[in-house]
Amino acid sequence: MNGPVEEKETGRIEAFSDGVFAIAITLLILEIRVPHLPAESGPSALGAALAGLWPSYVAFLTSFLTIFIMWANHHAIFRLVCRSDARFLYTNGLLLLLVTFVPFPTAILAEYLERPAAPAAAAFYAGTFVVISVAYWLLWQAAIDGRRLLRSHVTEEMIADFTKSYRLGLPGYLIATGAAFVNVFASIGICAALAGLWIAVSRHG
Amino acid sequence: MNGPVEEKETGRIEAFSDGVFAIAITLLILEIRVPHLPAESGPSALGAALAGLWPSYVAFLTSFLTIFIMWANHHAIFRLVCRSDARFLYTNGLLLLLVTFVPFPTAILAEYLERPAAPAAAAFYAGTFVVISVAYWLLWQAAIDGRRLLRSHVTEEMIADFTKSYRLGLPGYLIATGAAFVNVFASIGICAALAGLWIAVSRHG
Amino acid sequence: MNGPVEEKETGRIEAFSDGVFAIAITLLILEIRVPHLPAESGPSALGAALAGLWPSYVAFLTSFLTIFIMWANHHAIFRLVCRSDARFLYTNGLLLLLVTFVPFPTAILAEYLERPAAPAAAAFYAGTFVVISVAYWLLWQAAIDGRRLLRSHVTEEMIADFTKSYRLGLPGYLIATGAAFVNVFASIGICAALAGLWIAVSRHG
Amino acid sequence: MNGPVEEKETGRIEAFSDGVFAIAITLLILEIRVPHLPAESGPSALGAALAGLWPSYVAFLTSFLTIFIMWANHHAIFRLVCRSDARFLYTNGLLLLLVTFVPFPTAILAEYLERPAAPAAAAFYAGTFVVISVAYWLLWQAAIDGRRLLRSHVTEEMIADFTKSYRLGLPGYLIATGAAFVNVFASIGICAALAGLWIAVSRHG
Repeated sequence: MNGPVEEKETGRIEAFSDGVFAIAITLLILEIRVPHLPAESGPSALGAALAGLWPSYVAFLTSFLTIFIMWANHHAIFRLVCRSDARFLYTNGLLLLLVTFVPFPTAILAEYLERPAAPAAAAFYAGTFVVISVAYWLLWQAAIDGRRLLRSHVTEEMIADFTKSYRLGLPGYLIATGAAFVNVFASIGICAALAGLWIAVSRHG
Repeated sequence: MNGPVEEKETGRIEAFSDGVFAIAITLLILEIRVPHLPAESGPSALGAALAGLWPSYVAFLTSFLTIFIMWANHHAIFRLVCRSDARFLYTNGLLLLLVTFVPFPTAILAEYLERPAAPAAAAFYAGTFVVISVAYWLLWQAAIDGRRLLRSHVTEEMIADFTKSYRLGLPGYLIATGAAFVNVFASIGICAALAGLWIAVSRHG
Repeated sequence: MNGPVEEKETGRIEAFSDGVFAIAITLLILEIRVPHLPAESGPSALGAALAGLWPSYVAFLTSFLTIFIMWANHHAIFRLVCRSDARFLYTNGLLLLLVTFVPFPTAILAEYLERPAAPAAAAFYAGTFVVISVAYWLLWQAAIDGRRLLRSHVTEEMIADFTKSYRLGLPGYLIATGAAFVNVFASIGICAALAGLWIAVSRHG
Repeated sequence: MNGPVEEKETGRIEAFSDGVFAIAITLLILEIRVPHLPAESGPSALGAALAGLWPSYVAFLTSFLTIFIMWANHHAIFRLVCRSDARFLYTNGLLLLLVTFVPFPTAILAEYLERPAAPAAAAFYAGTFVVISVAYWLLWQAAIDGRRLLRSHVTEEMIADFTKSYRLGLPGYLIATGAAFVNVFASIGICAALAGLWIAVSRHG
């Protein structure tokens, strides 16, 4: 239970988490299906079919951006942490469960974005990120609780800054989920904007 | 065959194992299929279709939880080990073979959970974990045999604690397999409970 | 923000990037579909069907070669870098987005290479690498800007050599994209030749 | 170009290679398809359908075993090596290309093992390992050439032992390929036996 051994333990949690994030983000492409055209179709028909896949591209881009930022975020938490305990390990597992789930609502969104069922698809999509926001909050609480897992150089100010930025996620995604029933693109736009906001914040952080 | 070289060897076995665990756990989501509805279906039809996928969610959650705990478990064994030999390497390979197999019985369970063939699907599912329990037992025996692979700080008490907790797995999953022919949900419940029990044990360990 | 901590940060970006490259390159094989023949077909029919998959093999080989060289390239950039900042992190994310996208144009190329729509498929394929060239240029600019992220042993000559070799990519892939409308195989040949050229350059570098 | 930097370079090649091996070995399970039975089928019909998938299990097991041993083998080569050059890097790339290809002949074998086209399927399968044997030989030659990449503790005897064991692979898989046209199971048996032989050799090595 001395320093170097604990260091190694966090290292393997990070390696496993990196693997899960990397696979989930790469599997997204499998949801963009090759269009099947009649044998004699010419180049312009294929061009039109590729352009017609835009709902898949929108879903792919938004999900990629969101998973990438979740990874950067995860990375930022682990830079502050040098130990692990059972609560932190299993809260991290809950987060990874939700990360591996993301390709499924992404596929639902791509399939139904242009159809009458789009509001349910967008609400399911944004709703997934509501649950993920809660999981991040739980992981962050597990990381800072009693300061037992934190590196010694972490100040109370750094903790307060992180806590503040996490407060954006949950209400933001709740609004995106509600917006799905008013305007589907507003809902997706809020999800993308939250990702962009996070980048802007981290750029100055 | 000196210390640092052996350390490196275990490191690469862990990295490879982490990769296999991370991929197997992430592939589970590919077994949840996007429902295909008639073009004019509205949001409530999609909502009902997503809710109707509950057997897939149950299978996904149980398998995720189980693979995650197997990973934590694997991690715990490797924290005690600092060397490797051929027996340990190939027993670990047998375990990884079974880990990569898990998405298949998971897909079978999701497909047949609501149908008359459910008992066979649940028995196949729980039976996979019976075999995995045996593989864990073999890996553990390969790790502790003659203490040649163990770190020097590992006490006989720690070994006895691990051995005791491994004794739960095999009879538990055998009961789950038998229960499949009486009540399918009891069988899955036992699998989930065994995972939960393991978390509870490791929390106090 | 001292040396060792920054080192660790780059390490995790590399690990995540390696994961994404490794998965994207391995997923390419999923786009080669098993041919389905009538039940009574003999060995020579299967042999002919396997040979008839040559457009898939061409697409697989070209994409594998290109992703592998992108990885070697990525590796070469990170050998010069020891720190990270937000711009470098997110430019790397843009590059990874494009790497995960590659299996899709590869599948399009394999599907349409022998059909009248081939020029659009080849232009889409080569066009993807045009965008990737731009992303590499942006990553390289983020790496060298103000020398803040570079290791101290990196000389101006080394930087100039890298910059020169990056200048090949963009015009080369633009020519390949244009060539798609004249001759599809010339377009693919240019993509493969650019990969080969890069290997030749790195061999003497 | 000093020691520690070269060490790091090999480390990243190993990490990337481990990722590719881990993904290729885990993707094998995706080739075992869930059997689709009529809705009213009972447990015994599902049991029979699962048993009827034996060609898929045979293909899965043989490929898993072979990729796992290739990984252990790769691992053994890299334990002797501490530097990299362009030839070693790209020969390793060729090997990884072939590793990612393995799921495709595995799927072909599983699909056609019980059908008249089986000899072509088995020859394609064993033939893939012929090419892989050649790639291993090339990687081994790149590793030992002029001793420039080897660790200093590697003796000529160790090199000769490795070289001897590599001589088994090529003729063994050539015989398996030819045997495919006489008896399909003999061909697969030789592939499995070669894997078993390798384990036996490494056990005493």
